[in-house]
Amino acid sequence: MRQVAILGIGQTKVSEHWDKSLKELGGEACFAAMQDAGVKKVDALFVGNMLSPLIDGQNQLGTFFSDWVGLWGHEAVKVEAACGSGAAALRAGLMAVASGEIDSAMVVGVEKMTDKAGHDVTAALATAADADYEVEQGVSFVGINALVMRRYMHEYGWQHADFAPFSINAHTNALHNPNARLHMNITLEQFEKSSMVSTPINLLDASPIGDGAAAVIIVPAEKVNSVPGRPRILISGSGAATDTIAVHSRKDPLFLSAAHASAKRAYEMAGVTPQDIDVFELHDAFSIMTALSLEACGFAERGQGPRLGLDNEIRPEGSVPVCTRGGLKARGHPVGATGMYQIVEVVQQLRGECGKTQVDGAKIGMAQNIGGSGATVITHILTSD
Amino acid sequence: MRQVAILGIGQTKVSEHWDKSLKELGGEACFAAMQDAGVKKVDALFVGNMLSPLIDGQNQLGTFFSDWVGLWGHEAVKVEAACGSGAAALRAGLMAVASGEIDSAMVVGVEKMTDKAGHDVTAALATAADADYEVEQGVSFVGINALVMRRYMHEYGWQHADFAPFSINAHTNALHNPNARLHMNITLEQFEKSSMVSTPINLLDASPIGDGAAAVIIVPAEKVNSVPGRPRILISGSGAATDTIAVHSRKDPLFLSAAHASAKRAYEMAGVTPQDIDVFELHDAFSIMTALSLEACGFAERGQGPRLGLDNEIRPEGSVPVCTRGGLKARGHPVGATGMYQIVEVVQQLRGECGKTQVDGAKIGMAQNIGGSGATVITHILTSD
Repeated sequence: MRQVAILGIGQTKVSEHWDKSLKELGGEACFAAMQDAGVKKVDALFVGNMLSPLIDGQNQLGTFFSDWVGLWGHEAVKVEAACGSGAAALRAGLMAVASGEIDSAMVVGVEKMTDKAGHDVTAALATAADADYEVEQGVSFVGINALVMRRYMHEYGWQHADFAPFSINAHTNALHNPNARLHMNITLEQFEKSSMVSTPINLLDASPIGDGAAAVIIVPAEKVNSVPGRPRILISGSGAATDTIAVHSRKDPLFLSAAHASAKRAYEMAGVTPQDIDVFELHDAFSIMTALSLEACGFAERGQGPRLGLDNEIRPEGSVPVCTRGGLKARGHPVGATGMYQIVEVVQQLRGECGKTQVDGAKIGMAQNIGGSGATVITHILTSD
Repeated sequence: MRQVAILGIGQTKVSEHWDKSLKELGGEACFAAMQDAGVKKVDALFVGNMLSPLIDGQNQLGTFFSDWVGLWGHEAVKVEAACGSGAAALRAGLMAVASGEIDSAMVVGVEKMTDKAGHDVTAALATAADADYEVEQGVSFVGINALVMRRYMHEYGWQHADFAPFSINAHTNALHNPNARLHMNITLEQFEKSSMVSTPINLLDASPIGDGAAAVIIVPAEKVNSVPGRPRILISGSGAATDTIAVHSRKDPLFLSAAHASAKRAYEMAGVTPQDIDVFELHDAFSIMTALSLEACGFAERGQGPRLGLDNEIRPEGSVPVCTRGGLKARGHPVGATGMYQIVEVVQQLRGECGKTQVDGAKIGMAQNIGGSGATVITHILTSD
């Protein structure tokens, strides 16, 4: 495999973009990435998206966007892995560039979710679960995660309030990210008193949906001349793994085995260990997922994830900074775009562009994107050269 | 890029599989491919599918199937490019194996379409067109193709009956394919008198939808020891290209520029010309598409595609045999699976397993899969070693 580098990044604000079509939203991130990279063309376009057939009545998003952004004739395709679609598209683009078949690619994650009523979106999101055995029972996606969180609290003796630092950290960091959906501090008291969604998950345990798009340009590393003042950012590690699609089929529903396996592969490829990771953009769709991800990726012992929050280790100045731009919880979770927001944010950290939530001297960052309830997991490690 | 070979193939019959779930249908093709290849595991699974979110209420088909076929933990992802999803998944798998990142992959195209009413399927298929500018006008997918066919007949002076040989050839060949959906001879008179769908496209110009799945196992070529009596089948060429998504945006709506570009790339990679192709499984979703594909890929001059049918050159004994197993027209068109049926059928030709529709001495075969109205085109060339 050729080594591959990220040449440019682009993103829209995560919001309710009722004034922008799906085309305009994705295009905005693509044009921003091309401008940031200083290129006008790429060989191919890889689009990560989950819901456009259900919400926008649109399939074939690869060509839909290659047409819109002026890449007429160029290869384009859509990759889907539920909420892991963004990073899955990056991995597909990475393989194509690494193989030598193409010399540059744009990868964009895009999702427009707020044009439909909430119950339609809930039904659409449930297509990430097993239609035959989970959805058929009437359980929603948050319902599945609530069952996992309840079991985790029972098994390891944590109280609901012990998860508060995860959400508080995300919201605190998002205040400094102009592209975040939510700009508000939250307190422990607010966390505890917020509306119940699916017990024990309340509103401030859960990430908000949103409309958004984030994109990168990737090229063979040897073709990158560092821009003055900017490091060269390599995709030094990449790993993908799966678990059973239904949570009830797992031997241990409290261990994200696919997160563990995909992180392990990424660590091995990059030649690093968890201790080397300076910043970790994880998939905090729900607060329980932060705990489980930290454990699966080697940052905490089994059942001890919440301890890292309570000890402030997840803050930008801590030992394992997470959600430094707000995470899914406060930057927002436009599902098929999320994985690419994580990548863009890690690049911003490695470039030193994160202002008050900048991790000092960040050189190695990890992004982990999850589809379903830990069913599909794709992990990337980026290294500044 | 490492050279990649096809180690095994599997398929289901194309039919109305009301007795099989989506899982069972796709699984059947996967298990058949693994058995044919003599393997029990592969590193990764690539799934081509277009409609499962809309028809089956299921997303995340990569993990959905890796779970079902026993590839727990392994990488899996879905690739979507409308009716070109099957070949798009193969190309993604090809890049992953060619890059050296993985050493084996299964690629399955699967679609279950007949569990919904016809108007629901028509609406679902329309998501391949541009939702904002085509579907918004109320035009269906067959309606767009009808406009193209009418213009073509006007421009080049063909009559509707001149397209009959394409459909007759497909049906004649399908009689010898046990996996084909339709087993019936048709006559010129029946072709002319069949029910109108969208003028000038009538029922026997159009391919039938269906439920089906087809799969292959791919590995690095150097790892294949030829099975006695079977040649080694290499993926010697692969190319993908796009056009505008809306037909009305094209400078020339009668030329499939993406088909031309993707075939050109595949020819170059394989080091062959159209004259070297022994069998060509093309994307005959409508009879007009057969003519346009033959022209775009260098087998006929512009406007002269129908001549190859009238001269019997498309029969298995002709100079450019097409639809040798029935094509989309008679084998059937389970949309996201079609591209993988084409690949499986070319492998059958190169192995010499096609009985009465065997192309004598076939050594080089091409399969071309199209998403939308020529919007996304992926071409593969297979060579027996």
